[in-house]
Amino acid sequence: MSLDNVLAQIDSTLDASLARLFDLLRIKSISTDPAFKDECAHAAQWLVEQLKGIGFDASLRPTPVHPMVVAHARSARADAPHVLFYGHYDVQPVDPLNLWETDPFAPRLVEADGAQRIVARGSADDKGQLMTFVEACRAFMANGGLPCHVSILFEGEEECGSSSLPAFIAANKDELRADVVLVCDTNMWDRRTPAITTMLRGLAYEEVEISGASRDLHSGLFGGAAANPIRVLARILAGLHDDDGRVALPGFYDGVEELPADVAAQWRALDFSEAAFLGEVGLSVPAGEKGRSVLEQVWSRPTCEFNGIVGGYTGEGAKTVLPAKASAKVSFRLVGQQDPDKIVKSFRAYVASRLPADCKVRFTGHGASPGIALPFDSAHLQKASAALAREWGRDTVLAGGGGSIPVVGDFKRDLGMDTLMIGFGLDDDRIHSPNEKYEVTSFHKGARSWARVLAALAE
Amino acid sequence: MSLDNVLAQIDSTLDASLARLFDLLRIKSISTDPAFKDECAHAAQWLVEQLKGIGFDASLRPTPVHPMVVAHARSARADAPHVLFYGHYDVQPVDPLNLWETDPFAPRLVEADGAQRIVARGSADDKGQLMTFVEACRAFMANGGLPCHVSILFEGEEECGSSSLPAFIAANKDELRADVVLVCDTNMWDRRTPAITTMLRGLAYEEVEISGASRDLHSGLFGGAAANPIRVLARILAGLHDDDGRVALPGFYDGVEELPADVAAQWRALDFSEAAFLGEVGLSVPAGEKGRSVLEQVWSRPTCEFNGIVGGYTGEGAKTVLPAKASAKVSFRLVGQQDPDKIVKSFRAYVASRLPADCKVRFTGHGASPGIALPFDSAHLQKASAALAREWGRDTVLAGGGGSIPVVGDFKRDLGMDTLMIGFGLDDDRIHSPNEKYEVTSFHKGARSWARVLAALAE
Repeated sequence: MSLDNVLAQIDSTLDASLARLFDLLRIKSISTDPAFKDECAHAAQWLVEQLKGIGFDASLRPTPVHPMVVAHARSARADAPHVLFYGHYDVQPVDPLNLWETDPFAPRLVEADGAQRIVARGSADDKGQLMTFVEACRAFMANGGLPCHVSILFEGEEECGSSSLPAFIAANKDELRADVVLVCDTNMWDRRTPAITTMLRGLAYEEVEISGASRDLHSGLFGGAAANPIRVLARILAGLHDDDGRVALPGFYDGVEELPADVAAQWRALDFSEAAFLGEVGLSVPAGEKGRSVLEQVWSRPTCEFNGIVGGYTGEGAKTVLPAKASAKVSFRLVGQQDPDKIVKSFRAYVASRLPADCKVRFTGHGASPGIALPFDSAHLQKASAALAREWGRDTVLAGGGGSIPVVGDFKRDLGMDTLMIGFGLDDDRIHSPNEKYEVTSFHKGARSWARVLAALAE
Repeated sequence: MSLDNVLAQIDSTLDASLARLFDLLRIKSISTDPAFKDECAHAAQWLVEQLKGIGFDASLRPTPVHPMVVAHARSARADAPHVLFYGHYDVQPVDPLNLWETDPFAPRLVEADGAQRIVARGSADDKGQLMTFVEACRAFMANGGLPCHVSILFEGEEECGSSSLPAFIAANKDELRADVVLVCDTNMWDRRTPAITTMLRGLAYEEVEISGASRDLHSGLFGGAAANPIRVLARILAGLHDDDGRVALPGFYDGVEELPADVAAQWRALDFSEAAFLGEVGLSVPAGEKGRSVLEQVWSRPTCEFNGIVGGYTGEGAKTVLPAKASAKVSFRLVGQQDPDKIVKSFRAYVASRLPADCKVRFTGHGASPGIALPFDSAHLQKASAALAREWGRDTVLAGGGGSIPVVGDFKRDLGMDTLMIGFGLDDDRIHSPNEKYEVTSFHKGARSWARVLAALAE
């Protein structure tokens, strides 16, 4: 096995790699909407076939929701380290569909700002990213075999709470145990600078429905006398932040620690413009906790956000209705030692405490996972960091990350494994938004990066 | 003309009257949704044909939205008083459709609690009510003619803000001017006790849309740093009421007067159970201003209600999105001398004052009309009150009313005419809600009541 040959093969077969990615992007694997259940199964089966084609022992594993894909391939070197790669084949819903310039499931290449972009739902999150690893493995297999023993786990519920994942990991501990986990679901520092994400915020996601009268009422006949669930809900939501932008739930900040001084210094030294970060999405004022930098607000501080709200008449024009119910989706990004279950409990108690005697509340949990952090002195981290620097010609940034990847916490808790989060997304990839894209450079050099990282971990 | 003959004819032709009403109920005249524009025109044309058939000079009058119906018929007595009857042929939307037991536009008779009910959208609001007057006129025409000169105005925009009405009245003052206006769009006191509504709350209806970032964002990447329009909106809505349930807008209570002592005493003496009124819709605690009776809260006090709210992801499951915008429908019930325009202005200024620098707001007005009140010493009121008492065998309650009928204010302002609001709806008619109904007794004795009122006004 020669790394140079592997890299050369990745370069010379880019078009074929892109064609395979496009096949995967055409599959509408929206996991949160039951209408797309078959499409999720289709995406999983497609991945099984691909991995078998490369030489993996791959199989589909049913779950109560969407199937897992598990695959294994061994290195010729028996004492090689063993890595477990994780990715997810499911994607976010595409609404509002009218804001997409073209069909979200008809991938296309677009030239913009001097770069080639792959535009499609899932191009960056996470199909394009996971395929960088698959293509690196393919190149090794065609050039003497893998430098590490490689196991792969692809799930199809990352965008809808990963409800099947904890039980699946618990039931398959021996099969999934490895020396380190590799995850490709994060961003570069910028388009030229690689990054390894060493901190990830956790997520607790709650749906809360307030109901009042037994039916919708006429606001003229009952207005003033009848409880209005929208009013109750607005009051509850408005009380969740204080005037300084801090979350007002009792005990919310238990387990939230200040950054170590050296990490804080590294972050301050980063080439990061708050104005540019917010300006790119049309904003200018940091909306989080007062006195915190934007990087802290999105990397190392917990939040409470409202992801959706609906109640009453939402069509065109006016309707003088007092609705019987109103609901909101509320999520918390968690850091450090914050306990997701305690925070869900605190939230539910807070809502109940603000509920008028006349109203009822119904909660639906959509997952709860803690924040996680990788030790800065990890040998895997050092080797991967150096490998990435060789590919990109720049030092690797050891970054925080705002999003949640619950599986990283599961691997740590259930199998004691640390995770290297290495990804090639960019901040303007518009993940979860219309016109999501992934740069061809991310895809191509991403595959090259994984080749270098696998080789480095085997040294 | 003998009143007895007229009443006997109403009794003997009830089945044919019901069949005509069912024809009208089958027309899907939902005025707020542009998809039903043709159905609204169809309902108007149907009424023109009916009125012509009775002997009225009736015509369709186009407007920028939905057409008016105007009709005239004279009494043989040249010096008879002249009444203008107003009703509306448009209906509310039918959502949530799944809560209807049968098609809202397939009217049917149902036996319940020993009474016959007409179940359909619009059965009570307002097609069933307006047809009581048409059927009374039909019976007079077949028995020697009308006791009063009668003009009729039916509009098709009552449920969507009546935007064409003020200009139409202003342009047709001479044609519409009469001695008194009759409106049939209110309720009885209970199923055995007639009522004339002498006070009506006005309505100012605003739609407010808050926008933040230029697109939907990932709550992991931006959560904490980016403005969240749902959070901004919830804070704005939550600030609109104080802890005592009073509306917190500056100047909101300007022009709101306490009830005269005698009216307050009459209301206290009414056989009204707050527990039963709220209990019928599954509630138990008056939600309005503290220290006010429920009758005050729904009849003589102004309100601020939230009729609808929407933002972000509202589908099944979880989506970690920070929405680019969120919107709410907010309406105010107005009383006394409250100035609707000043209140709209105050509301918009309040919202603007609570808007973060990063966010934008867009307002859409859906109408603004003042509250109105009929003098208790009106001769028309005394005559009509006595006529109703003769039909029902009980004293007529002089009631307040919570709903808004903007046209009543327009008639007062533009033509100096007072309005007698006489209706036969019941509190459990579920207007604006699924399974709306109108009692056959309301329809039948409603027509008889109008016959008696017309005869009394002519005395």
